[in-house]
Amino acid sequence: MSRCPKITLLAGGVGGAKAAEGLASSHYRWNLQIIGNVADDQEFHGLWVSPDIDTLTYSLADLIDRQHGWGLRGDSSNTLHCLERLGAETWMQLGDMDFATHIFRTEQRRLGRRPTEIATQIAKRLGVEIPLLLPTDDRVQTRIGTDRGWLSFQEYFVRERCAPQVLEVRFDGIEQARPTAEALAAIRDAELILIAPSNPIVSIGPILATPGIRDAISRSDAYCIAISPLIGGKTVKGPADRMMSSLGYQSDLLGIAELYHGLIDALVIDRQDQPHQAALESLGLAVSVTDTLMSQPQQKQALMEHCVEFALAQQDRSAA
Amino acid sequence: MSRCPKITLLAGGVGGAKAAEGLASSHYRWNLQIIGNVADDQEFHGLWVSPDIDTLTYSLADLIDRQHGWGLRGDSSNTLHCLERLGAETWMQLGDMDFATHIFRTEQRRLGRRPTEIATQIAKRLGVEIPLLLPTDDRVQTRIGTDRGWLSFQEYFVRERCAPQVLEVRFDGIEQARPTAEALAAIRDAELILIAPSNPIVSIGPILATPGIRDAISRSDAYCIAISPLIGGKTVKGPADRMMSSLGYQSDLLGIAELYHGLIDALVIDRQDQPHQAALESLGLAVSVTDTLMSQPQQKQALMEHCVEFALAQQDRSAA
Repeated sequence: MSRCPKITLLAGGVGGAKAAEGLASSHYRWNLQIIGNVADDQEFHGLWVSPDIDTLTYSLADLIDRQHGWGLRGDSSNTLHCLERLGAETWMQLGDMDFATHIFRTEQRRLGRRPTEIATQIAKRLGVEIPLLLPTDDRVQTRIGTDRGWLSFQEYFVRERCAPQVLEVRFDGIEQARPTAEALAAIRDAELILIAPSNPIVSIGPILATPGIRDAISRSDAYCIAISPLIGGKTVKGPADRMMSSLGYQSDLLGIAELYHGLIDALVIDRQDQPHQAALESLGLAVSVTDTLMSQPQQKQALMEHCVEFALAQQDRSAA
Repeated sequence: MSRCPKITLLAGGVGGAKAAEGLASSHYRWNLQIIGNVADDQEFHGLWVSPDIDTLTYSLADLIDRQHGWGLRGDSSNTLHCLERLGAETWMQLGDMDFATHIFRTEQRRLGRRPTEIATQIAKRLGVEIPLLLPTDDRVQTRIGTDRGWLSFQEYFVRERCAPQVLEVRFDGIEQARPTAEALAAIRDAELILIAPSNPIVSIGPILATPGIRDAISRSDAYCIAISPLIGGKTVKGPADRMMSSLGYQSDLLGIAELYHGLIDALVIDRQDQPHQAALESLGLAVSVTDTLMSQPQQKQALMEHCVEFALAQQDRSAA
């Protein structure tokens, strides 16, 4: 592996955006590509909203509302308020500037352009140079089976604030979905594959479940390293731990290791979770212990540099 | 005709909105229905924009930006600025609150609802109680043949600021368009039909050209009265006079009388045009001379009350 390896990051949700920012601000950004999650996309008011891709784009463009972790900084809500007055359901917060993204995306899709090209154009126009790739151009929709019935991801996550108990997760359309050539090439060409500290079920899950993607990673010679989304056995934000538990996984690092079994060479865990290091190593994983909280920009960059350097060192060791 | 006659107003553009406001603020509002113009509708950013209907709605809701004569008062342009950044053409000014109307309308159309129902819902939600009717639910598009080629109405009017010379006007889709039951009923039931001081070619023209509408007016027993859009032989705003001239009509009151030939019983003209009164009367038209400028709310109401009272007096005379 070269000293500035070709890196492909799998990134979903807020954790994915933070990891992307950490890499993008490091000197490892030059050979970086990012594969995002499209399964939590949903149509609102007839417009195609792609929350994970937008969060990645807005984060890398430094336009993100850092207080919320989503949406555009300084955005207003005039459109949404008027939609409410007209009788529309408006639980999904969409700002006026943010609406431009959804309007533009929807029109371009109706004109027949590939979602991948549209995402690229939006990112470039907002100043993002790092390639943001989609796992598929086809429609895949996360459906959450809960004690209150089946919900879309946004209904579960935003409208119901993750309150319902998750009994089942499926990705509608996943069997028919074709991986994009760009995503497959990014995996094939990678020297290092990083899995961001995102929700393994609903953020990374749909990327890996896209036919061809998981296989491509398994077959790749790249060193593959995941960052645990758990700190002290709990997620920093979001429902990953409860979701893993209610779906029958161990809601701890062993559960993470199980979900990424056959894919990853190493797992980066937080200092608070050091007690689990030996158990993870006994599964054949290399384990690195560090501070994994990414509140501040320096923390994001430091964590991501740590991951790359750990991977390089592991490679050196195995080459020696 | 009763003292509070059933009135149907044909209204397009800013002149139409002003006439509508004048009637709506008078005591003649109780039996009022308004038929608007949909032929200058156009899709922008994949959204269906209906400028004449929106101007009517926003005016009657007292939400209109009175400085511009279109759009919503106090609106912002955050969405449009972001669309521009993403690479979209943004010569059509659409505010953030205004976008809500277009987003809502577009989604409702895609859901299969009738444009008439959608226009009614938008108007009601914004507080407009007077029925705003569409001449047709079908797609009719004004095309302007100019010395710079064929343009949509908005391209001609907004983007090119009416600068090109108009050589031809056609309404694409008009032959196949079916009149709405609501518009036909409003004409059939009317005791008084008023034609607003709108552009007779492109604002009133497409309403009258909708199959069935002109016939229904001709066959109606209602007294039909038009307000001239000319003052001192010129339009107050807009290109009606130049357009009439370049299309081969007399660009004066006789041209107006010709365009409404067979429809109207009376023409209301401005004091500045009194010299033409005799010529108009020799065509068999009743003529009323008054102040037709509608800058102030009182002027709108006074003019429209004058029109109704003139019509009532003419009816009384013919009944006597």
